[in-house]
Amino acid sequence: MSEESKRHAFESGRFIVKPGKKFDLSKRDPGDTGGLENKAAGKEALENDVSDLAAAQELLWANGSRSVLIIFQALDAAGKDGSIKHVMSGVNPQGVDVSSFKAPNSEELKHHFLWRPMQKLPARGRIAIFNRSYYEEVLVVRVHPEFLDAQVTPSRLDGEPFKKLWAARFDEINRFEQQLVENDITVIKFFLNVSKEEQRERFLDRLNEPGKLWKFSGADLKERGYWDEYQKVYEEMLEATSTKEAPWYVIPADHKWYARASIADIVARRIGELGLEPPQATEEQEENREKWKKALEE
Amino acid sequence: MSEESKRHAFESGRFIVKPGKKFDLSKRDPGDTGGLENKAAGKEALENDVSDLAAAQELLWANGSRSVLIIFQALDAAGKDGSIKHVMSGVNPQGVDVSSFKAPNSEELKHHFLWRPMQKLPARGRIAIFNRSYYEEVLVVRVHPEFLDAQVTPSRLDGEPFKKLWAARFDEINRFEQQLVENDITVIKFFLNVSKEEQRERFLDRLNEPGKLWKFSGADLKERGYWDEYQKVYEEMLEATSTKEAPWYVIPADHKWYARASIADIVARRIGELGLEPPQATEEQEENREKWKKALEE
Repeated sequence: MSEESKRHAFESGRFIVKPGKKFDLSKRDPGDTGGLENKAAGKEALENDVSDLAAAQELLWANGSRSVLIIFQALDAAGKDGSIKHVMSGVNPQGVDVSSFKAPNSEELKHHFLWRPMQKLPARGRIAIFNRSYYEEVLVVRVHPEFLDAQVTPSRLDGEPFKKLWAARFDEINRFEQQLVENDITVIKFFLNVSKEEQRERFLDRLNEPGKLWKFSGADLKERGYWDEYQKVYEEMLEATSTKEAPWYVIPADHKWYARASIADIVARRIGELGLEPPQATEEQEENREKWKKALEE
Repeated sequence: MSEESKRHAFESGRFIVKPGKKFDLSKRDPGDTGGLENKAAGKEALENDVSDLAAAQELLWANGSRSVLIIFQALDAAGKDGSIKHVMSGVNPQGVDVSSFKAPNSEELKHHFLWRPMQKLPARGRIAIFNRSYYEEVLVVRVHPEFLDAQVTPSRLDGEPFKKLWAARFDEINRFEQQLVENDITVIKFFLNVSKEEQRERFLDRLNEPGKLWKFSGADLKERGYWDEYQKVYEEMLEATSTKEAPWYVIPADHKWYARASIADIVARRIGELGLEPPQATEEQEENREKWKKALEE
C-alpha cells in the first residue's frame, strides 16, 4: 500500500465529529473502507500501525510526562473487545490498563457519575482504555431513564425537566475532559459505528455457531429493539461532546479490519503528535558516569 | 527446532526449586541455555510460546473460573521488564494487569505486608503479573533491616530475635499462597538468575550508551555492593517458599532470549494443564436459540 493511499484511507477528517457543528449520524457510512480495496490492505496497515503504536507507547512510558485515555463506545457486537485485543496486542501490558464499565454497583451509584472513571485515569506515562465509559450515563441511561431511580442526582438538578439533565451532564463531561487535557492527558474517543444489518449478521453468527451461543443473551435482542432511540442519543451525545480538545472519531465498523486499522492509525498518530523526547540523563548522571564505570570495572 | 529438543530445552525440572529440599543457588548456572544452540532457536520457541500463551489467556478469560498470578523477582538488570514486555505482548491487555511493587508508601507501611498484594490479586478469568512483590519483604528488607524501622510488625513478633522474624514471614507467605491456590489461583513464581558478571556488562552498557544513561543510578551500584548478601537471602527464600502448590522456577537469565522463551513456555504449559473448557451455552440459551433467530430474521 502506498503512502498516498494510506493517507487517503485514514485521513482523520473522515472520522472526526466537528466541534460546535450540527452532526448527522445517518450521513456516516458504517460500511466505509476509505478507498482501501480489501482486507489484506487493511491487515497490512494494521500491522504497521500496531508496531508504530508499540514504539509510541514505549516512548510515552519512558518520557513519563504525559498520558493517554482511549474511550470506546458502541452498540453491542460493534467490535469493541476485538478492537482492544487486536489494536493493543503488541503493546507492553506494563504500560496499559483496560477498565470495563459494566453497570455501576451500589457504592458507585451513590457517587457522582464521574467518580468512577476518575479512579481509573491513566498515571503519567501510561495508557488507560475505557471499554464503555461514563458516556453510558447519557446513552443507556437516557434510553432507559428508569435507571435514574437508583441514582442520586445533585440537588441543583432537583425538579429540572429531563432535557436539562442531559444538557447538564454533557456540560459536566466537557468540563471534566477539558481539565484532563489541561493536565496532559490526551483524550481519544472512538464511537464504533455498526449498521443495523451488520449487527444482525453478527448476532445470527453467535446463534448459529455452537461455540458462540454462550455469548448471546435475550437482553441483546431487547436492546436491539431500541435501535432508533440509540441512534438518536448517540447522535446528540456526539454533537454535544465532540470538542476541540477531545473530539469524537466515528469509526466505520461494518468491516472489522478497517475499523481496527483506523483506530491503530489514529492512536499512533495522536501519540506521535505529542512530539515526546526520550528521557535525558541528568547532570548528576553525566558527572558520575566515569566514576561509576571505573567502580564497575574494578 | 524439533519437539524433542524443545522438550529438552524447557523441561521444567531444570528450573524448579524442589519443595522441602535443601537448595544451593550457586549450583544453578545463569548462563544455561538448556541445550539450545543459539538465539534464533530461542526466538522461534518464544514466538510459538507467545502465540500458545495468547490462546491460553483467551480460554482462561472466556472460561472465567480460574485465574493466574505470575511473580517476577530478580536483582537489577536481570530482565524483569523486558521479560514482561516480550512474553506478555500479544496477550489481550484486557485480561492482564501488571502491578509494580516499588517501595511501599506511608499508608502501605501501616498495614501488614500482605495487604498490598491482596488488592492486586487477579479476579477470575484474569492474569495478574507482579513486577517485584511481597517477597521484597524477605529480600531487600532483610539485606537492609533498617527498613523495618518504618514498619509496625505484629505484636506477637515483639522482641523476637531477627531470625524468627524472617521464618515467620516465610510461613505467612506460604500460608497466603496456599490459600490462593485453594481458591483457584495458579501461582507461578520466577526468579531471574543473572550472574554478577552479566549484571556488570548490562550496567556498563547503560553507562556507555548515551541513550541509556538515564536508566542508571548510583543506587544500582550501591545495591550491587551487597551481591553476596542478596545471593544468600534469595537462596534461603527460594528454599523456604518453594512449595508443591506454588513452586519457584529459577530461570537462567544471562541469555535474555533463553529466559524469555523459558518463561513463556512455563506459563503457557501451566495454563494448559488446567484443562479449561470453553464456556458452554446455558439451557436457556439452547431453548431460546430458534426463537431469537426468528426474531432477528424478521
